[in-house]
Amino acid sequence: MPRLEFWYEFASTYSYLSAMRIAPMAHAAGVEVVWKPFLLGPIFQAQGWHTSPFRIYPSKGRYMLRDLQRLAAERGLPPFALPAAFPANSVPAARLAIIGARDGWVAAFTRAVFQAEFAEQADIADASVLGRILGQLGLDQTLLLASIERAEHKLSLRQQTAEAARRGLFGAPSFLVGDELFWGDDRLPQALAYATRS
Amino acid sequence: MPRLEFWYEFASTYSYLSAMRIAPMAHAAGVEVVWKPFLLGPIFQAQGWHTSPFRIYPSKGRYMLRDLQRLAAERGLPPFALPAAFPANSVPAARLAIIGARDGWVAAFTRAVFQAEFAEQADIADASVLGRILGQLGLDQTLLLASIERAEHKLSLRQQTAEAARRGLFGAPSFLVGDELFWGDDRLPQALAYATRS
Repeated sequence: MPRLEFWYEFASTYSYLSAMRIAPMAHAAGVEVVWKPFLLGPIFQAQGWHTSPFRIYPSKGRYMLRDLQRLAAERGLPPFALPAAFPANSVPAARLAIIGARDGWVAAFTRAVFQAEFAEQADIADASVLGRILGQLGLDQTLLLASIERAEHKLSLRQQTAEAARRGLFGAPSFLVGDELFWGDDRLPQALAYATRS
Repeated sequence: MPRLEFWYEFASTYSYLSAMRIAPMAHAAGVEVVWKPFLLGPIFQAQGWHTSPFRIYPSKGRYMLRDLQRLAAERGLPPFALPAAFPANSVPAARLAIIGARDGWVAAFTRAVFQAEFAEQADIADASVLGRILGQLGLDQTLLLASIERAEHKLSLRQQTAEAARRGLFGAPSFLVGDELFWGDDRLPQALAYATRS
């Protein structure tokens, strides 16, 4: 089965859009999705950005909000709004997602985190928000929230982020089919079509 | 008939993509296109950028080239490549296009300039390149190339660029339906659909 890597950042609004639609689209196309959470922060810092580009460029930020509202409405998602903490500190959620990728619950966890962030305006850096999501998935929240403080899980996320930089990623969401890069939720259909041809 | 304003910059690669497809798409949707050439330079400078963002961020620049090659191939356009002079000095072409918008030849002129730039890698700041295009459209190239040095035509382009900034444009191509903004060639279908509903 052809494979597509889905690289996403929990603070990224357009990653949210892709997370909510990638599973059924990939299933219909006969493509396996590999979920790859990473951190954009270190990559943006290397570009000279120290916060979200939507904060740095206000007219772009205002537009982004309107664009997301329109797309969420078109796709039947809940009304889109930014949480008070934007861009969110996505480190704890990303460390958990890497554990979930190993243990088989990454897709459901990722969708639930994004839903909390952009449909319910929750702070995804808040352990109680993450704990509730883990609990709803039937997972041991106490054990998992403690485990993300362990050096091995901190290292896993750093390595995944370093891999993203090494492979030329500069934004999220990004899709990789082998070394062929597609950037942005708009390119998801094209990336899936490419995967089925290669 | 619903109207859509097409705001574009001759140095912008994604403006090229829209220029080559907007007329048949708008015709099919029953939407009138108002062609609005402007300069991104002053707008980028206000954001702190002094050249193309694709030059400022090399990984994004490499990706952009690949993205455009894929899209050009999908759409049956000639193989995409950047001209040696990129980003081009687009001032003379934009001044001519504003005259063309007044006199009825802006669409054909715009497509010919973009074709020269991104399919033939010509320097669109070169008066001989612009003169040849004007001549092929049956226009008086000597008269027109002289006229763009006149204060009134310099002022028209400055005013159009100031209008773009005032209306919240931060990139190109952009589409306006009334005050509703759509940014990027990817949003052209959505902008046309919005125009037909409003």
